[in-house]
Amino acid sequence: GMEEARPPASPAGLSAYVAVSQLLGLTLLATTGAWLGRYRGGVAWQSPLQFNVHPLCMVLGMVFLQGDALLVYRVFRHEAKRSTKVLHALLHGLALVITLVGIIAVFESHRSKGIPDMYSLHSWCGMAAFALYLLQWLLGCAFFLFPGASFSLRGRYKPQHVFFGVALFALSVATSLLGITEMLLFNIRDSYSHFVPEGVLANTLGVLLVAFGLVVGYVLTQDDWKRPPLPEELALSMDFKTLTEGESPGGSS
Amino acid sequence: GMEEARPPASPAGLSAYVAVSQLLGLTLLATTGAWLGRYRGGVAWQSPLQFNVHPLCMVLGMVFLQGDALLVYRVFRHEAKRSTKVLHALLHGLALVITLVGIIAVFESHRSKGIPDMYSLHSWCGMAAFALYLLQWLLGCAFFLFPGASFSLRGRYKPQHVFFGVALFALSVATSLLGITEMLLFNIRDSYSHFVPEGVLANTLGVLLVAFGLVVGYVLTQDDWKRPPLPEELALSMDFKTLTEGESPGGSS
Repeated sequence: GMEEARPPASPAGLSAYVAVSQLLGLTLLATTGAWLGRYRGGVAWQSPLQFNVHPLCMVLGMVFLQGDALLVYRVFRHEAKRSTKVLHALLHGLALVITLVGIIAVFESHRSKGIPDMYSLHSWCGMAAFALYLLQWLLGCAFFLFPGASFSLRGRYKPQHVFFGVALFALSVATSLLGITEMLLFNIRDSYSHFVPEGVLANTLGVLLVAFGLVVGYVLTQDDWKRPPLPEELALSMDFKTLTEGESPGGSS
Repeated sequence: GMEEARPPASPAGLSAYVAVSQLLGLTLLATTGAWLGRYRGGVAWQSPLQFNVHPLCMVLGMVFLQGDALLVYRVFRHEAKRSTKVLHALLHGLALVITLVGIIAVFESHRSKGIPDMYSLHSWCGMAAFALYLLQWLLGCAFFLFPGASFSLRGRYKPQHVFFGVALFALSVATSLLGITEMLLFNIRDSYSHFVPEGVLANTLGVLLVAFGLVVGYVLTQDDWKRPPLPEELALSMDFKTLTEGESPGGSS
């Protein structure tokens, strides 16, 4: 609504939940940084600290940025659909690049320490989440950004895209919890059960990850908070409906 | 639709997905049994094997039965709403009882071995999931089974009940993955990275848990597969609407 004199207001509850999600997201990053900085020697690309790039990139890319990318249609609800779509794709693309850096960090760290790759449940879930997330991004660009896909094809793919978007986000949060548990049991296995500060801090990070996931999931599943079509989109949708003789677009494109 | 001559058919896709979910659910239980029986000495209430009651009860109660309880409105879509509600509550109640047995098993096992309780991320997530699941069940009974709550109160609580139902199911699946990772790192920490059969089997159990969660989640989020109101429910809803002067029941009660 840049062009209008008074932009329409967002639902009050929505703004509060989005604010809480962003506060939780920043707290996630700060807590991850505190854990790595205070107890794990910090973060560097050079070998003994290269592993620590992995959790930082994953919390930033696979959780915070992926979650925020899911929220853009709710937050920028009165902007042109095309701009919001591009932002959605860019945020997911940035998340994918940061995630890839995090994956390279753990593979290089394993190689320099002689640790095998891909044996743990964390690695299986994480690799599945990354591969499917990349596929989802490519399909999303092909269906919704490039002009090839028809209006009705977009409408039929959209619910699948939305379901798998939320499901992959949930899998990413769950995979982060697995990573926290692995890191703790590899590093402080014997003192973890004595409630040492590192264990309590990392558990708290896990609880914050779950809370971020819940708040983002709650915002996404409230029907009243879905992005309403702009007046010009409704008109366009009517034109297409007439042209395609009664095809149901489902408010998509 | 017992009373009718020809019960209306369910959507074809729904039946297939429900069949796959039940196949996955039974495979989950068999895989858990195989893991505990083949590699962990079996299951018994007596001390050295008492711990093993915990994963078995959790996969059965917190995942399989909880998941199936979420599906009853889709599966028994043409039965009277009241019967389906009672079945939903009974399945969740059974899941809660089995979960409680699993919690007692791990606390007693810890006590007999001198291991502290509630220090791990798995225990934090699991206890939160159980406490919130019990609360959700109590609120569900209070709002939907006992006659006290008004029609409009039920309609306003229902979306919250549905969101937290799916969220707690997802948290339960994630907590099971954490439990698998803990068990593997406590028991086969050194051989896990060499792809020993126990590690691969337990990872496979984790993948099956994710798959079960995805299929149940997919069934629950398809709009076309939601339970349609019976003709007599629609009539009743109209009566109430007239009585309460335009309150929106949202297809609930």
